[in-house]
Amino acid sequence: LTLNQKSLSLTLPFQKSMEAMMNKWDCISPLDARYQDKELIEFLAENAFLRYKLRAEIFLAQALHEAGICSEEIVREIQQACSLVALSPEEVEKEEARVHHDVRAMVNCIQRRVSAEAKPFVHLCATSYDIVDTANAARFRDATLLVLVPRLQSLIAILKTKSELFADVVQVGRTHGQHAVPITFGFVLAGYVKRLQSCVDQLSLLAANLPGKLSGAVGAYNAMLLLQDWIDPLTLELRYLAQQNLKPQVPATQIVQPEPRIRFFHEICLAGGVMADLADDLRHLQRSEISEVGEEYAVDQIGSSTMPQKRNPINFENIKSIWKLLITRFQVIMLDQLCEHQRDLTNSASSRTYGEIIAFAAVMAKRMTRALQHIAVDTDNLERNLTLTRGLILAEPLYVLLALHDHPDAHEAVRKLTQQAIADKKTFQEALAAATDLQPYLAKFTPDQRRILEDPHNYTGLAAEIARGINDDD
Amino acid sequence: LTLNQKSLSLTLPFQKSMEAMMNKWDCISPLDARYQDKELIEFLAENAFLRYKLRAEIFLAQALHEAGICSEEIVREIQQACSLVALSPEEVEKEEARVHHDVRAMVNCIQRRVSAEAKPFVHLCATSYDIVDTANAARFRDATLLVLVPRLQSLIAILKTKSELFADVVQVGRTHGQHAVPITFGFVLAGYVKRLQSCVDQLSLLAANLPGKLSGAVGAYNAMLLLQDWIDPLTLELRYLAQQNLKPQVPATQIVQPEPRIRFFHEICLAGGVMADLADDLRHLQRSEISEVGEEYAVDQIGSSTMPQKRNPINFENIKSIWKLLITRFQVIMLDQLCEHQRDLTNSASSRTYGEIIAFAAVMAKRMTRALQHIAVDTDNLERNLTLTRGLILAEPLYVLLALHDHPDAHEAVRKLTQQAIADKKTFQEALAAATDLQPYLAKFTPDQRRILEDPHNYTGLAAEIARGINDDD
Amino acid sequence: LTLNQKSLSLTLPFQKSMEAMMNKWDCISPLDARYQDKELIEFLAENAFLRYKLRAEIFLAQALHEAGICSEEIVREIQQACSLVALSPEEVEKEEARVHHDVRAMVNCIQRRVSAEAKPFVHLCATSYDIVDTANAARFRDATLLVLVPRLQSLIAILKTKSELFADVVQVGRTHGQHAVPITFGFVLAGYVKRLQSCVDQLSLLAANLPGKLSGAVGAYNAMLLLQDWIDPLTLELRYLAQQNLKPQVPATQIVQPEPRIRFFHEICLAGGVMADLADDLRHLQRSEISEVGEEYAVDQIGSSTMPQKRNPINFENIKSIWKLLITRFQVIMLDQLCEHQRDLTNSASSRTYGEIIAFAAVMAKRMTRALQHIAVDTDNLERNLTLTRGLILAEPLYVLLALHDHPDAHEAVRKLTQQAIADKKTFQEALAAATDLQPYLAKFTPDQRRILEDPHNYTGLAAEIARGINDDD
Amino acid sequence: LTLNQKSLSLTLPFQKSMEAMMNKWDCISPLDARYQDKELIEFLAENAFLRYKLRAEIFLAQALHEAGICSEEIVREIQQACSLVALSPEEVEKEEARVHHDVRAMVNCIQRRVSAEAKPFVHLCATSYDIVDTANAARFRDATLLVLVPRLQSLIAILKTKSELFADVVQVGRTHGQHAVPITFGFVLAGYVKRLQSCVDQLSLLAANLPGKLSGAVGAYNAMLLLQDWIDPLTLELRYLAQQNLKPQVPATQIVQPEPRIRFFHEICLAGGVMADLADDLRHLQRSEISEVGEEYAVDQIGSSTMPQKRNPINFENIKSIWKLLITRFQVIMLDQLCEHQRDLTNSASSRTYGEIIAFAAVMAKRMTRALQHIAVDTDNLERNLTLTRGLILAEPLYVLLALHDHPDAHEAVRKLTQQAIADKKTFQEALAAATDLQPYLAKFTPDQRRILEDPHNYTGLAAEIARGINDDD
Repeated sequence: LTLNQKSLSLTLPFQKSMEAMMNKWDCISPLDARYQDKELIEFLAENAFLRYKLRAEIFLAQALHEAGICSEEIVREIQQACSLVALSPEEVEKEEARVHHDVRAMVNCIQRRVSAEAKPFVHLCATSYDIVDTANAARFRDATLLVLVPRLQSLIAILKTKSELFADVVQVGRTHGQHAVPITFGFVLAGYVKRLQSCVDQLSLLAANLPGKLSGAVGAYNAMLLLQDWIDPLTLELRYLAQQNLKPQVPATQIVQPEPRIRFFHEICLAGGVMADLADDLRHLQRSEISEVGEEYAVDQIGSSTMPQKRNPINFENIKSIWKLLITRFQVIMLDQLCEHQRDLTNSASSRTYGEIIAFAAVMAKRMTRALQHIAVDTDNLERNLTLTRGLILAEPLYVLLALHDHPDAHEAVRKLTQQAIADKKTFQEALAAATDLQPYLAKFTPDQRRILEDPHNYTGLAAEIARGINDDD
Repeated sequence: LTLNQKSLSLTLPFQKSMEAMMNKWDCISPLDARYQDKELIEFLAENAFLRYKLRAEIFLAQALHEAGICSEEIVREIQQACSLVALSPEEVEKEEARVHHDVRAMVNCIQRRVSAEAKPFVHLCATSYDIVDTANAARFRDATLLVLVPRLQSLIAILKTKSELFADVVQVGRTHGQHAVPITFGFVLAGYVKRLQSCVDQLSLLAANLPGKLSGAVGAYNAMLLLQDWIDPLTLELRYLAQQNLKPQVPATQIVQPEPRIRFFHEICLAGGVMADLADDLRHLQRSEISEVGEEYAVDQIGSSTMPQKRNPINFENIKSIWKLLITRFQVIMLDQLCEHQRDLTNSASSRTYGEIIAFAAVMAKRMTRALQHIAVDTDNLERNLTLTRGLILAEPLYVLLALHDHPDAHEAVRKLTQQAIADKKTFQEALAAATDLQPYLAKFTPDQRRILEDPHNYTGLAAEIARGINDDD
Repeated sequence: LTLNQKSLSLTLPFQKSMEAMMNKWDCISPLDARYQDKELIEFLAENAFLRYKLRAEIFLAQALHEAGICSEEIVREIQQACSLVALSPEEVEKEEARVHHDVRAMVNCIQRRVSAEAKPFVHLCATSYDIVDTANAARFRDATLLVLVPRLQSLIAILKTKSELFADVVQVGRTHGQHAVPITFGFVLAGYVKRLQSCVDQLSLLAANLPGKLSGAVGAYNAMLLLQDWIDPLTLELRYLAQQNLKPQVPATQIVQPEPRIRFFHEICLAGGVMADLADDLRHLQRSEISEVGEEYAVDQIGSSTMPQKRNPINFENIKSIWKLLITRFQVIMLDQLCEHQRDLTNSASSRTYGEIIAFAAVMAKRMTRALQHIAVDTDNLERNLTLTRGLILAEPLYVLLALHDHPDAHEAVRKLTQQAIADKKTFQEALAAATDLQPYLAKFTPDQRRILEDPHNYTGLAAEIARGINDDD
Repeated sequence: LTLNQKSLSLTLPFQKSMEAMMNKWDCISPLDARYQDKELIEFLAENAFLRYKLRAEIFLAQALHEAGICSEEIVREIQQACSLVALSPEEVEKEEARVHHDVRAMVNCIQRRVSAEAKPFVHLCATSYDIVDTANAARFRDATLLVLVPRLQSLIAILKTKSELFADVVQVGRTHGQHAVPITFGFVLAGYVKRLQSCVDQLSLLAANLPGKLSGAVGAYNAMLLLQDWIDPLTLELRYLAQQNLKPQVPATQIVQPEPRIRFFHEICLAGGVMADLADDLRHLQRSEISEVGEEYAVDQIGSSTMPQKRNPINFENIKSIWKLLITRFQVIMLDQLCEHQRDLTNSASSRTYGEIIAFAAVMAKRMTRALQHIAVDTDNLERNLTLTRGLILAEPLYVLLALHDHPDAHEAVRKLTQQAIADKKTFQEALAAATDLQPYLAKFTPDQRRILEDPHNYTGLAAEIARGINDDD
């Protein structure tokens, strides 16, 4: 997906006002303090929101001009007035304190900067949410396509590399935290690649299709129809949005239909869930008793303020923790699906926090990628764990092969065999050799089948093939 | 979408056991008592779950047979054993009390009913979730495509009819619960048609693509690869699933990738949200002071046990209430996205409740459709409310037209005019006539523009066109 | 807390109607099928709800009689009419189908069964929720105090027993899944005892104080004031409720103030969270690599349908899974806190599901208790794990003792020592012996201090004392 | 509740670093930008967190000194080092970038500022969460008791004033949005007073009892027991906490027991829910058709950027919107109840956001109070609405009085009467006069009873008494 990059630069960065200067440590949200991330501020901070709203006003003037309603000179005037060098957030804030309406305050500020001739064409026919919803669609899309998705793709890239690298490294598979049957570590990662890729595909699509609008106070194009001698309302809306790479979804009310936005944020949560699931796996694989995976530690890194020996999986813990923020904050977006009549504003404060979900997900993706780059796999421990149950993880192939060789109650026979092995503290292979009733069946096994029962490395199914095949789809 | 209807009838209905007989009033869940719905029991009750699992076992045997691993006779034996005339849920429950494993209990019951020759081929190579996840995908899909989606389509159909019927019935548009500018009642409904249709389209797709699996205990096809002399594992899985109109998503772990299921249930919540939003609107339109809409009451219907005059919007209240159940229960599905390693079972109890979401949504859709069939629109009250603010809802076109006729500060001028009208208890038209400073502009208005300022019926934008156009897309 | 047990038996059990007979396998909710629990049906099923509502009507008549408004004979008539032998849920359901109002339907059914003289006194002055909210308060309280709390107390009892039993069994403490410093297994359980006890204390109080009401349609006692010649409204309410061991909370609206109910259900969630937290710990302690704890398996128990050797922590997984149901379902109760004006009914369907939270918690508590009774602790593995990091878990006391002996940078010195030990594959004690720069400090250590550094069993703090002290508070 | 105010001033405010200077518009969270609130920054911002942690370190040193472990001079050194003039958040951040551990970084920074002699006593024996959990308990308590609770009390005060002011102003009561029976507007507010007061009482208690800890890395006082020659661990903990007005809850793990914190935040949500419920009521009372309540508008205030006549209930909408943020964010605190073994850190990021809930609630309370101060009640519209149904809201007293005068089927008789009145477009009183079959009963009514049927002002029950009585409890 390519974006209209030019449109992004229509307005210059804000001039920093000394009045509102503060220290990032004065912030309450970790997104503004501890996890502050310049790339996200660009799209998700309060002033980014203003910048996108000003852009929308410029595009509205442009669309009016193209319809012959106002002159090119007027567009240029409005564009200059919307330049953030001229128009600071403080100015809008002061005007809002007077008129108690955020968008009208912005419009008033623009109007003050243009000639009497241009004034009437500022915000003409538009309702606040023709600007706000459009600006939000554009900036949520941009934050996603220009920051979040690229970060997720970097994560997928490192996962693919590791998946191939560890395609043949045998690991015991675990279900219920118990040893099940063997897989390879690359196979584990391959599963996450596929799941994450599917989220990225969906998310890119959903981001690119977030709808904007220009249909007026109740969505029925009432004001726009007053311009019908110049242009029909649906065409005006299409042109206004096309310049911002957006499309309408007809009919809207005062606001866009909420479902596309909900699906979009839901998909971010799903991507977050895949990252958290992987983080959880890697975290448990770092347990002292398992130790198959480790984060490479910086020389000076400290694990505990009181236990000098500690090395904690803090990155993976952090990622799981942020996931909890994602899915709980997502609820508010589901609650905001309901809106009385042509709109009530009981989503006024809540909708100002939506961007935090994108920000948290982007923070997760960056940290996950960095953590994976530094991951260390301990093959000694992988081998030790693989043989921990002394062959019992080969109970499954024994049962299946017995069944294939016509044993009438194979599962039960093998279940008893494993119980016997545990009771007698024997290896699976020793217990099998001692099981006289099974020998007639074993005699019929092929050499390949016998090899599987001797060594769990021979019973990894298609794990390695799947791990290596992860790049084939590209 | 067409379903393999034949496959549904592979097994006969369960024999009712007298032992487990109970009264529906003994149930705790309203889905099993007050809202009991036969059509849903078919897919979502405990015995439906068993029936779908038995079907999956039959299809597994069939797939093994087609690969040359067992005879057709064996498939027939297994199919007969899986018949619910023979195999009751009580029997499985008793076996489970012995072995403490639900799927193994079912497999044991089947094996008892077949010859020693057939025994080994029952459930051969499969892990429990090759059966369970596949059965759930099939029954969730069937409940959706055969019950929920048809109900939603009936709802859309009645909404379309009403949308056309009321396409030209003018209603005041409301934002913040305040009168804004006029629309038509058909336009309101048209918006819901579009939103609901979009959910149904997505939902049908998501339901039809719920993945099943046959990839064994950790998703690496370990056991299935033991059959490679007959058939390769991926082909075996494809065939097993194809018979059930399902597809795999590779790689799985012990369980299918959770994301397709989460998206599916999320879309049900969105459809529920659209219904709840509409219900909320209609509920408020029934307020004593608004009274634009009413549920037609049965002659004997009672609104209150103590206030004999009451007529309450109970259907719409009920629908909003169920929506709250949907979105909160959906959370558990989001939480279940995380699963340790190749799977843990901390979703064991929670996943047994997923079907309730489909059931509640189906109950909503049925009730919403019924309520809409009996909706009454009070045109007298629509007219009364339209003129309640005595023309002030025409402030917007006045401001836009003034601006188009070059008034340099039209919004502010009109805001003051409306304040004056309120203060002087005049109609908007009277106040406008008295505003001498605006007369030069008004003089330039066209007759059509003046007509708009005289009567809100002339300022409905494209509302009627959009309402009438709602069937054009088909 | 003692309950008015007599009041519970005022009405006989329902006659089972053959019409509504069904099989529990026809149920959608696992609470009605797989997890069906007779003790809970008594309070939480649909017919229990009806029984409590009928009881409330009897108590209302009794209160009217005591005020001199109606005769004792009339109370007796109403009491007989409310007997469930006479009045079946089917009858109420049929009447509701006619009048579309559940409580009025019930009232009509009662009225049909009494003389013309008694008729006016059935439900006199009451609004539906004077009955419904009161019945719910009573049955939620009874289900809690008679089933859930006793089950939680059984759980606490077994936890206390085990806490004392394992008070001195040393276990490595874990933070971030990494070995930290030693504790004892009894200490772990003691923590859960305290947390659970605190929840039970709160819950008992909250259950006993769930408010009922008798204040009429909008909470202002409008209808009740019509009786002022006989009795003042607040006294009438107190008497009506006192007979049911309930108290009012003035003022109500049509419904009781929601906050006491929300706090009550929240506390159930907290108790569930403590159980889930314990379950999670025990589940991880059963991991193949850790194996410090095991569920004792039945001889015939099967862990996997394909892996005959598996032994899965299914009870603890199930308990964590139900916790997810609790906390997500609780959300709906929080959403229902809001209610428009004197009440809207957008909690109609949702409030019918509240009891499920009590039921799920009771199922959890029962299962947790059973699982803990059969828990096995593997002391060999506890010892093995304690020494797994070869003494590194003693880094903390070394650092503290060095500091106490005036080492200026003890934490850093010990951190480097542990890194060296790992690099050199030495034990902590060997590395310490080799650390020449630390010897001057060590020389000053007391014999007791040296003993701690030799053996982690000597560094368990107050763990054992706390574990043994757990019964002291009683 | 009185706080140890002196302890708050132990450390001076941070020096602002120019390096980290930013504009509040660069913030993503509305709490840091649009809703920035100086009073809350004091307790909830990142630097407030650091300040409270530094205070805890000072109190730890003080407690060690009191036990005779270190000199008073050392405490003074540590206290000076912890002064924020000396120790900036930037410095800690830089050290954390080196050691990757936030608390250790802080400790290192302190140690650098003290003599070699004092170094060992900085943070001695403490684990990070002995500091962090204690600091959080103290600052959450302070933010609550010094900001949130006073704001809620101001809100209660204004509600009480208005409740008395409007104690006798009759309003139609509404259930299901339908006219029910009369109340008074003061009665409505009185209900909110009681509910909110109950939340404030609970919240103050819960805030004051948030536990701190000083029990070491796994809660067993392992390190503290090394100091037993000077002081026993439980006494040390008590003294450390007592200085901060905190108490322990034994046993903890590495972290405090989570339940007290969850109950505390839950109560904030409940208070938020009461505010949102009130806001919702007032919002609907501002609907164009109802207009019983209005926010007094500033002269220059603008309701819509396109509709100059609009006056929107934006304050009440905003308050409801923030409530959605509260209850959804609260979920994360419920999820964080679970923590593996002696603690995992999957609540690392999430716990950094807890303070946002307090902040949002404080923003709500402030705005609600301000909005209520400017509320206008339109008595004309109250009267108009009261008579809107032309007397039908008196159906209830008629039915009750008929019953009291022995009518055998009073509810049904009155239900039909009201239907007839509607059909005939008569007032209730006209229809009653025409109902010949009821006249014999009416003849028996007392003059007072008849007065009630003539005028809804006479049927307000105890509404006025309750409204006036709201201050009696004080």
